[in-house]
Amino acid sequence: MRRISEIGELGVIERILECLDLMPDMPVPFWDDASAVDFGGGMLLVVKTDMLVGETDVPSGMSLFEAARKAVVMNVSDFAAKGVKPMAIVASLGLPRDLTEEDVVQIGRGLNMGAREYGTYIIGGDTNEASDLIISCSVVGFCERNKFMKRSGARPGDILAVTGLFGKTSCGLKILLDGLYAPSDIRDALVKSVLMPEARLKEGLALASSGAITSSIDSSDGLAWSLHELSRSSEVGFIVDDVPIAPEAIKFAEFHNLDPVELSLYGGEEYELVVTVKPSLWEVAERTVEKVGSKLIRIGEVIEERKILLRIDDSTIPIKRRGWEHFKSK
Amino acid sequence: MRRISEIGELGVIERILECLDLMPDMPVPFWDDASAVDFGGGMLLVVKTDMLVGETDVPSGMSLFEAARKAVVMNVSDFAAKGVKPMAIVASLGLPRDLTEEDVVQIGRGLNMGAREYGTYIIGGDTNEASDLIISCSVVGFCERNKFMKRSGARPGDILAVTGLFGKTSCGLKILLDGLYAPSDIRDALVKSVLMPEARLKEGLALASSGAITSSIDSSDGLAWSLHELSRSSEVGFIVDDVPIAPEAIKFAEFHNLDPVELSLYGGEEYELVVTVKPSLWEVAERTVEKVGSKLIRIGEVIEERKILLRIDDSTIPIKRRGWEHFKSK
Repeated sequence: MRRISEIGELGVIERILECLDLMPDMPVPFWDDASAVDFGGGMLLVVKTDMLVGETDVPSGMSLFEAARKAVVMNVSDFAAKGVKPMAIVASLGLPRDLTEEDVVQIGRGLNMGAREYGTYIIGGDTNEASDLIISCSVVGFCERNKFMKRSGARPGDILAVTGLFGKTSCGLKILLDGLYAPSDIRDALVKSVLMPEARLKEGLALASSGAITSSIDSSDGLAWSLHELSRSSEVGFIVDDVPIAPEAIKFAEFHNLDPVELSLYGGEEYELVVTVKPSLWEVAERTVEKVGSKLIRIGEVIEERKILLRIDDSTIPIKRRGWEHFKSK
Repeated sequence: MRRISEIGELGVIERILECLDLMPDMPVPFWDDASAVDFGGGMLLVVKTDMLVGETDVPSGMSLFEAARKAVVMNVSDFAAKGVKPMAIVASLGLPRDLTEEDVVQIGRGLNMGAREYGTYIIGGDTNEASDLIISCSVVGFCERNKFMKRSGARPGDILAVTGLFGKTSCGLKILLDGLYAPSDIRDALVKSVLMPEARLKEGLALASSGAITSSIDSSDGLAWSLHELSRSSEVGFIVDDVPIAPEAIKFAEFHNLDPVELSLYGGEEYELVVTVKPSLWEVAERTVEKVGSKLIRIGEVIEERKILLRIDDSTIPIKRRGWEHFKSK
């Protein structure tokens, strides 16, 4: 009998999906970042649930306030990637018995802050005793069926783009978990990227309205992992010309003699959007994101062959399916 | 600094609520069994989240299949109590690393069974590693705003009623947790009430349509606790004339020299509905529930004074606020 540490998170999800009856006319397949129900009139009810677990999702140095806020942000990020405005959030808590009253207040404030930053509210929840901290949020919202940005839909020739620079969280985690040193002028930015992540909600909503996007995912499991997921859902490949790396990550990598591209591809806990764009509407998409104060960065192209490649000078190397996988990763 | 084991679950919820900004025009207050958002046209989007935790919610003798099914049923029961049809369910899982592939299949089957029994589907979820088994389900659905059965709304003179007999789960838990003996002709029914609980969904939907109900709650934390919650939300009291006890519970109580009324009032993990009914529409409510094959049982009356009393012959005794409270109970 195999343990789940052998089959990994993907194996676990596959086993569970094999047990589930499929809702007829499910508008969004399993494996996408959020689920939906068609309720007529061309509208979808969208719902997403994502659980934060103390042991794996709360690095040392993260306060309970930050953990609770992050539990909300990671759910909002999935809504952002689908282009759906979060309408309300419920939070189910598992709390160790030895927490103090002040700890609970910090959790309450973090939940509220996460919700209010994205214009939504915590409207209910559930409280339980558990041996580890568990914060399981669920978000609900509506969107027009044809504006929901799925993981599937990328076509060869589409432009591959992201909403920001990569690598800061990898460096931040090395500072927090491994105690690596960082010069004071970059330390704050690197650590903050882990402790106070931000979801690209306004960018996602704008992109969904542009009509330019053919597929979308967030980069919460790392850029490489996201590309592999988009590839699987869209049945295409990617060639990445350029990985946009945050200057703080480049400086940190230089200092520790690390590869900044590695840090940027195989990170995680990063909430940029990774999208594919119809070439004819690239400028529309670019302008749309500029209008909300951000930048859409072209990083490559969709190809027919199901390979994920990084171009370096005149050759290419494969980008591996590597990132955090529950049960397998340690 | 007080620990949450001192302030208890109610204290924890109060501390968190103090931190939350209130959504404007929230149609259902905090503390009710489900949350809702008004989305116009007299309709509510209803959402409920409830977490099952291995250590506290899965008694010895309960299989992973049964635990996963129960995680769905306890959410459906809250929808039943509000008179709302569950449209879809998402499940967030925390799984210990040493589970086997077969364990995961059992969880998948239990989730699916729980959903399909109530005409709904699991449409998505999230998988995580955790030190204890965690199954956090969230249910979504719609209802007409004026059909949502709140906890508030009971008026003095209303009839207090329930959808079934009490006491079996208390006995079942004594068998499973304390190893108490039960004669073979009742053992199965008592144990089954714990392992394979059923939500009163068709009864709740029928009652919501009847227009006869002024307040409603499920009895998942015990009948006594539910009465205290209804009392707090509706700002009324109750006088209970009669606690309807399952014959198997009476027999078990006799055998062990236990008080069957105690077993029935202060149990839990029982999913009957506890409702108050407009006296002029009592027969309508009764017939409505009969039509779906069940029975609405009158157990007392709503009184103005905020006391919860049990009538015994010519006197009354208080029904205590006692039941399972996380962090305080052991």
